[in-house]
Amino acid sequence: MPTFTSLDVTDVRFPTSRSLDGSDAMNKDPDYSAAYLELRTSDGESGASLVFTIGRGNDVQGEAIRALSHHVIGRDVEEVLADIGRAGAAMIEDSQLRWLGPEKGVMQMAIGAVVNALWDLRCMREGKPLWLLLAELSPEELVDLVDFRYLEDALTREEALEILERALPGRAARIAQIQDRGYPAYTTTPGWLGYSDEKMERLLREARDQGFEMVKLKVGGDLADDLRRFEITRRILGEDFLVAADANQRWGVAEAVAAMEALAPAHPYWIEEPTSPDDVLAHAEIRRRISPIKVATGEHVHNRIMFKQLLQAGAVDVVQIDATRVGGVHENLAILLLAAKYGVPVCPHAGGVGLCEMVQHLSMLDFIAISGTMDDRRIEYVDHLHEHFVEPAIIQEGHYLAPQLPGAGARMLPASIETHRFPDGPVWKELTR
Amino acid sequence: MPTFTSLDVTDVRFPTSRSLDGSDAMNKDPDYSAAYLELRTSDGESGASLVFTIGRGNDVQGEAIRALSHHVIGRDVEEVLADIGRAGAAMIEDSQLRWLGPEKGVMQMAIGAVVNALWDLRCMREGKPLWLLLAELSPEELVDLVDFRYLEDALTREEALEILERALPGRAARIAQIQDRGYPAYTTTPGWLGYSDEKMERLLREARDQGFEMVKLKVGGDLADDLRRFEITRRILGEDFLVAADANQRWGVAEAVAAMEALAPAHPYWIEEPTSPDDVLAHAEIRRRISPIKVATGEHVHNRIMFKQLLQAGAVDVVQIDATRVGGVHENLAILLLAAKYGVPVCPHAGGVGLCEMVQHLSMLDFIAISGTMDDRRIEYVDHLHEHFVEPAIIQEGHYLAPQLPGAGARMLPASIETHRFPDGPVWKELTR
Repeated sequence: MPTFTSLDVTDVRFPTSRSLDGSDAMNKDPDYSAAYLELRTSDGESGASLVFTIGRGNDVQGEAIRALSHHVIGRDVEEVLADIGRAGAAMIEDSQLRWLGPEKGVMQMAIGAVVNALWDLRCMREGKPLWLLLAELSPEELVDLVDFRYLEDALTREEALEILERALPGRAARIAQIQDRGYPAYTTTPGWLGYSDEKMERLLREARDQGFEMVKLKVGGDLADDLRRFEITRRILGEDFLVAADANQRWGVAEAVAAMEALAPAHPYWIEEPTSPDDVLAHAEIRRRISPIKVATGEHVHNRIMFKQLLQAGAVDVVQIDATRVGGVHENLAILLLAAKYGVPVCPHAGGVGLCEMVQHLSMLDFIAISGTMDDRRIEYVDHLHEHFVEPAIIQEGHYLAPQLPGAGARMLPASIETHRFPDGPVWKELTR
Repeated sequence: MPTFTSLDVTDVRFPTSRSLDGSDAMNKDPDYSAAYLELRTSDGESGASLVFTIGRGNDVQGEAIRALSHHVIGRDVEEVLADIGRAGAAMIEDSQLRWLGPEKGVMQMAIGAVVNALWDLRCMREGKPLWLLLAELSPEELVDLVDFRYLEDALTREEALEILERALPGRAARIAQIQDRGYPAYTTTPGWLGYSDEKMERLLREARDQGFEMVKLKVGGDLADDLRRFEITRRILGEDFLVAADANQRWGVAEAVAAMEALAPAHPYWIEEPTSPDDVLAHAEIRRRISPIKVATGEHVHNRIMFKQLLQAGAVDVVQIDATRVGGVHENLAILLLAAKYGVPVCPHAGGVGLCEMVQHLSMLDFIAISGTMDDRRIEYVDHLHEHFVEPAIIQEGHYLAPQLPGAGARMLPASIETHRFPDGPVWKELTR
């Protein structure tokens, strides 16, 4: 009987701050990074996953993942994979580690990474990409993965089952549709604050020509700057193109309302992260005051309990899940079910390192087995760092094509890991010479 | 000019799980621990502080503290100490570490630890205990320590100043009162789930005889058990004694309401942590449905933005700050000001390792310079592990006596640190032999 033998974590960092890729109002100089893990078994298999960070602290994230080793090492592989839901719950309930959250920050992301690595291994063994493996589970099997603690005032197990059962009839047709056409994407590639107007113009034209039907601009630095960049965008893409704005938590309520009133003539489609991701009540107030501009948030929303409240309070028009922020596939499944219950579309956050590769599986699952629709739903796409993955995300005519290889999407190329290992890989040795 | 030369972190753990001290419905086997730091200067001084954890993960917490080294090492001591507010803000705004929160979990606790160590050093240099040093700052100096980002829809800088100015006239008299009589305490020593009825009865009698006017019992394991323990408590302490209950996040809304309806005949004074600390809306709903039993929470509430919402939503009757959960003295000052604005009493969480020693300074500051009252306010006290501190908390007639030594309270005895160092100190070597 194979057992888990090691949980290897590598600190992988890309020196993106040199090019201002990924620069926004709060995160000025990110070095896109991954706390990368491989969970190895005694018969030579492995499950891979990662947590995305933006540089410093990637080592802390790695320590948090290592701190979960006792939950898997030495255990029977078949037994754990037969009930990944239980394995995830045991990590959440760890009676000592729980104090460091509970259910938030680096520990929750670490739990998510181990959960996702277990799913990656199960996908490898069953020879399926994650989206398809999950989309073929029964409603009961899916619901068994969800931790309903603290959710039942908004969503009970029975209601979740009902949502999944309602979507059962069309599953096969929707699988075919995903295989055929993929899932809609939007792009943030042109929108980073650090780019010159010329670079932005070129990237906007490319985005339109590549078939994207929506772009997103970073805002929240200087208002005059934001207005100019929106003007350029409207000049190039026209008045009807969907253009979202992303403030990356820059404002309080009054500042958000004032800024959106100023930007309203350029009719942004949504404002993303107008304020602190923790501030449910502020999001609700902002949404009330800037309607019809939509409010979106989620990439920093730390667990299902916060998403539940955003939905209960009518605080968001768009739920933005992230593949590595919460407790993995299970908690994202809970969030997808909550969004379906409240009829709010999910438009995942992506970009970074591996987030596109990972989160596409969840949107495809949402379409096939949960919400059953792609209306008003698009996955973010940023054209960075895909070449380091075994199966890079592929965009065609503004759509993510369905991944075909077995796995959950996070597996990186060994050479990429080796080259970008921090601080002793060749890329970093060269930079610090 | 002295500079900061090192940030030394030690993993200190006490094997408390052997005696079931500290056992509750969610934390069954805590090994009370401290990620202990000393921030040293080139002229041989140091500021000490700690983050309390309950065992596993204390090493992760230590790594998080070390990750902040670049914010202090090499910097001019006088310059940093002259504006600790700025030093704290710079750590919160760290453009890469911010991704790991923002403002939550181990990173926020780490920032709090460094902030608190800077205050400890400043206290040592000025020869004052923290409560007195802070209580002698001007309203402007205090307000300058607060980060008002995300707070201004509830509390502006001007309103905070007004609160502090209103309390100016009586400061000297209240300092004298604190020096004379101290600050009221309540005790959780008798209430842990793991104790036998006999041990509990003995500890309840001792609590009353020591002059405490309130005790707290852990609940949320087995309801019949909770009822029996409340019955014993009422038999020993009478009907008028204040007896609070603490569920340690065990329930959802419906379970909390049902449990409190069952416990109502024993008239618990408050129910603490009835549900997830993240769930503002659930606390509000529970409070509405179990009135007049009060709702208390805070020891796991991760920042000022969450406390703000608990107050805005009318979700709590009692705010429970914790000395090491949030971003240190500065963020706790923001929370004290928010509570004063909303007229809600603050009854700090304490116990653990060093929490009593640290948090008493903040309640004393609240009395002297912020709320100006002790009505309905008591600091938790648990009779554990005080002997390891340079200045242990002292209780007399149910009151915390005012600390007299210079410092912020967290400084431990070198021998205690050495003996309990994990995993290689003698206590742990003996246990794992």
